[in-house]
Amino acid sequence: MKPAVCLLSGGLDSSTCLAYAKSKGFDCYALSFNYGQRHLFELEAAKRVAASLGAIDHKIINLDLRAFGGSALTADIDVPKSRNAEQMAHGIPVTYVPARNTIFLSLALAWAETLGASDIFIGVNAIDYSGYPDCRPEYIEAFTKMADLATRAGVEGHSRLNIHTPLIHRSKADITQLAAELGVDFRLTFTCYDPDSSGRSCGLCDACILRLKGFVEAGISDPIPYQPQ
Amino acid sequence: MKPAVCLLSGGLDSSTCLAYAKSKGFDCYALSFNYGQRHLFELEAAKRVAASLGAIDHKIINLDLRAFGGSALTADIDVPKSRNAEQMAHGIPVTYVPARNTIFLSLALAWAETLGASDIFIGVNAIDYSGYPDCRPEYIEAFTKMADLATRAGVEGHSRLNIHTPLIHRSKADITQLAAELGVDFRLTFTCYDPDSSGRSCGLCDACILRLKGFVEAGISDPIPYQPQ
Repeated sequence: MKPAVCLLSGGLDSSTCLAYAKSKGFDCYALSFNYGQRHLFELEAAKRVAASLGAIDHKIINLDLRAFGGSALTADIDVPKSRNAEQMAHGIPVTYVPARNTIFLSLALAWAETLGASDIFIGVNAIDYSGYPDCRPEYIEAFTKMADLATRAGVEGHSRLNIHTPLIHRSKADITQLAAELGVDFRLTFTCYDPDSSGRSCGLCDACILRLKGFVEAGISDPIPYQPQ
Repeated sequence: MKPAVCLLSGGLDSSTCLAYAKSKGFDCYALSFNYGQRHLFELEAAKRVAASLGAIDHKIINLDLRAFGGSALTADIDVPKSRNAEQMAHGIPVTYVPARNTIFLSLALAWAETLGASDIFIGVNAIDYSGYPDCRPEYIEAFTKMADLATRAGVEGHSRLNIHTPLIHRSKADITQLAAELGVDFRLTFTCYDPDSSGRSCGLCDACILRLKGFVEAGISDPIPYQPQ
């Protein structure tokens, strides 16, 4: 079994990505971040998902990105609600966290190197996505090139890094279908940017809208609780 | 005055790099990390240096790289001592911290983006260095390309990132000379990987040996305290 570091937020995409890595025979080391996000429900979800999918280890790294702010997820900026597809397609939203995937992949790279792993899984998605620059194939390719110059493993040439992005070209409906096929327990996942204090999803933020759209198009019912509209 | 994020460990190279950025007219935002390194003398040095060189702000980010280990600086591995130039030139030493500069530059990138800065300074050095892969020009170039694909600033095209590495092609003697010209107070800097409990440098680790070599070749006396040999 080859080791792989799997970035895991606890959302549907990263949970599906972890299930996918496992289905391909990898020993999965799940990595999550307590980075000052708006709520900790997603980290609780990440713990449940890592356990249910049999991750070998699950680390949660503390890293306060509120020190920099600059996003609705790490500063006192409202999360946009009820945006339609056209609005979402236009530009980079305020929920973009500066350099977040670069930071997360860098830390995944550090863990991969100490594990002797040359595989990292990340559930980024460039279709039905929120316009984040660090979810695009050209970004992942550039990160991989950089990483092979950054590390002992890359320089000594005994392993080239593979960043696996199995969801990058899938629609949300495809991802939901794949999750069902891989046995992801939807009830354990958490997607919403702005839940209420009891952990019910808002149903109106971009993340909820995209999740719900995926379920509808896949013909699957989303079992997690939503706030009444 | 243009803003720039300046990575600052408190060692001679990063302190000189900060002084250089200031001499070029940048408003300097110094960034340091409490990453689980062997001692905190260098962070105290970073605070003193940032203050003495007039940094606009100085953030110290907590990020426990001991979670991953894999280095003499972040795990229970002895720091090599009394190595000669030939030994240092051979391979990547155990003081290499997996993906450290990638992690630090990623966080500098996040701060730069929230500041609206397109300039980052890092005091990496590819001559008289310790064989770290993430100190080489080709690595810095690859990071820059990746970063321009990662961020709002890069994607929207209103600013391309510049990673300044003013020390990368200088010998330690040149750096020491430059530091003197720029008015860096050598007493405030801290370089040693393995000081004693009172903060006296060991004089025998690679970092001390390279520092002392630079001072000797520059014809300058190093004013910091060393342990008696």
